[in-house]
Amino acid sequence: MEKFAIAIHGGAGTILRSSMTAEKEMSYKNGLKDALGAGEKILSSGGTSLDAVEAAIISLENNPLFNAGRGAVFTNEGKNEMDASIMEGNTLMAGAVTGVKNIKNPITLAKTVMQQSEHVFLSGLGAMEFAEKMKLEFAPDEYFFVQQRYDQLLQAKETDSIILDHTETKISGKDKTGTVGCVALDVHGNLAAGTSTGGMTNKKFGRVGDSPMIGAGTYANNNTCAISCTGHGEYFIRAVVAYDISCLMEYKGLTLKQACDFVVNKKLVTFGGEGGLIALDAKGNIELPFNSEGMYRASLKSQEELFIGIYKD
Amino acid sequence: MEKFAIAIHGGAGTILRSSMTAEKEMSYKNGLKDALGAGEKILSSGGTSLDAVEAAIISLENNPLFNAGRGAVFTNEGKNEMDASIMEGNTLMAGAVTGVKNIKNPITLAKTVMQQSEHVFLSGLGAMEFAEKMKLEFAPDEYFFVQQRYDQLLQAKETDSIILDHTETKISGKDKTGTVGCVALDVHGNLAAGTSTGGMTNKKFGRVGDSPMIGAGTYANNNTCAISCTGHGEYFIRAVVAYDISCLMEYKGLTLKQACDFVVNKKLVTFGGEGGLIALDAKGNIELPFNSEGMYRASLKSQEELFIGIYKD
Repeated sequence: MEKFAIAIHGGAGTILRSSMTAEKEMSYKNGLKDALGAGEKILSSGGTSLDAVEAAIISLENNPLFNAGRGAVFTNEGKNEMDASIMEGNTLMAGAVTGVKNIKNPITLAKTVMQQSEHVFLSGLGAMEFAEKMKLEFAPDEYFFVQQRYDQLLQAKETDSIILDHTETKISGKDKTGTVGCVALDVHGNLAAGTSTGGMTNKKFGRVGDSPMIGAGTYANNNTCAISCTGHGEYFIRAVVAYDISCLMEYKGLTLKQACDFVVNKKLVTFGGEGGLIALDAKGNIELPFNSEGMYRASLKSQEELFIGIYKD
Repeated sequence: MEKFAIAIHGGAGTILRSSMTAEKEMSYKNGLKDALGAGEKILSSGGTSLDAVEAAIISLENNPLFNAGRGAVFTNEGKNEMDASIMEGNTLMAGAVTGVKNIKNPITLAKTVMQQSEHVFLSGLGAMEFAEKMKLEFAPDEYFFVQQRYDQLLQAKETDSIILDHTETKISGKDKTGTVGCVALDVHGNLAAGTSTGGMTNKKFGRVGDSPMIGAGTYANNNTCAISCTGHGEYFIRAVVAYDISCLMEYKGLTLKQACDFVVNKKLVTFGGEGGLIALDAKGNIELPFNSEGMYRASLKSQEELFIGIYKD
């Protein structure tokens, strides 16, 4: 049987060992393990990387610990507005949505846009109208109400700061974002990547980050790699991060590791862009680089033990 | 005095000499000439490429002939929803908006997002709220009402087809889009690029094309080039066209001409992506490639005669 591989992330930011309890750490690790398992189940039985990416991200979206789907942070108006995107490496087909509310699983909507519409990217009420037409599952506001997220909003409004997700301390005014993502390689040799997010706490003005942007937050191409990013979206957009890694491999002949190191630890650091990404190439090599304090991450290759990490060391 | 250069486009598509009158051709040429002049005025007096890009695009947005600003096509709901983006090559700063209504000049809103907000990309009502806060000019629905555009909507609804802009014949069901854009190099050696569009006639579901997407429809970097695209947006998003040209120059050492030829006439053609782009490098080289029947385009370098083109030959 051919090999498969999968990696996921649950967001990057100031995640410090000192502010984590053993119980909380275990919850995060279990959440990552469950999501990885959902993807693995599909891959090990010969399913596609696209379906594995969707399944792993659904698991993360349904878990209130992560800033996507159910656990999406609150906007300035006290709403949950979500973004997601997905891309398939053999066809370069892609789907994405931004600013959708009450959609239980935005990653499934992104996949449906890719497969059932003639478009790649739908936004706001229009995207929700499409979801309704496609009979996707909606959930009421209460489903998305997570007390900790609401407290984050109240706290952010107090100081008029935005963002921050995986930050346990009082808001510093520094940008932090939470996002979930998955990259997978199936036994057929096809790559796929997906990303889903609730954006920034106290977000205003219909801000769009890198998560729903093909090329910035998500990219997959069988000739190079599959990438899902998490971090300060504005910098990731301006640096076209996901496609940059693909181009460094395709046009400059770098390995996945070299391309990831260069973009995450040199280019983005110089640029001021905090965050990280998960990357997978067609040979099954996995890289999970980040330049922030921590990144919730996990990976698994067929016939190997799974890896789960949170902190830098 | 250092050299400057500027190029603009007014959209690509099925523009056939056989369906054009001398009078109509003259109107388009005058529109392109006026826009180029607006940019040239700024560049020749030592202004920035960013301001020149904005000025040229404002001229095109104010001209009902082009699918942007005043001449924006109608969505399925009979509204004008516009997208725009702008990027500066020395700082890699960028601004973009999608799905905005009643904004007189979306390119100015994109520039304001870049300069006055901490974000890159704003959408829908939120973007309009930001425009109001920044005291940008709004215009009533009547300003955007152009009879020909409305007839296009009625015609498109009849056949339930979307899109088509520069198509004079009965709707063929084939996708065609109109967009305007500008790339400029100022005497300080800085590049900038911008794109603005009304999207597709009979557009549904809040569709977002490549125009507001940094990396896909617009990109500028002093180390490589400035790019503005026009064409079938979905393909341009999936191929990350604008940044692809930059990467081919930076990582593979291609010239601007080689990179444009490869992406527009090989990659996009194989992919099925109809359209074109305008490109300018830091040495002032200009390329205006397209794989469609025609593209409204014009360019000018300091101390040289201006060029205006519509058809392939």
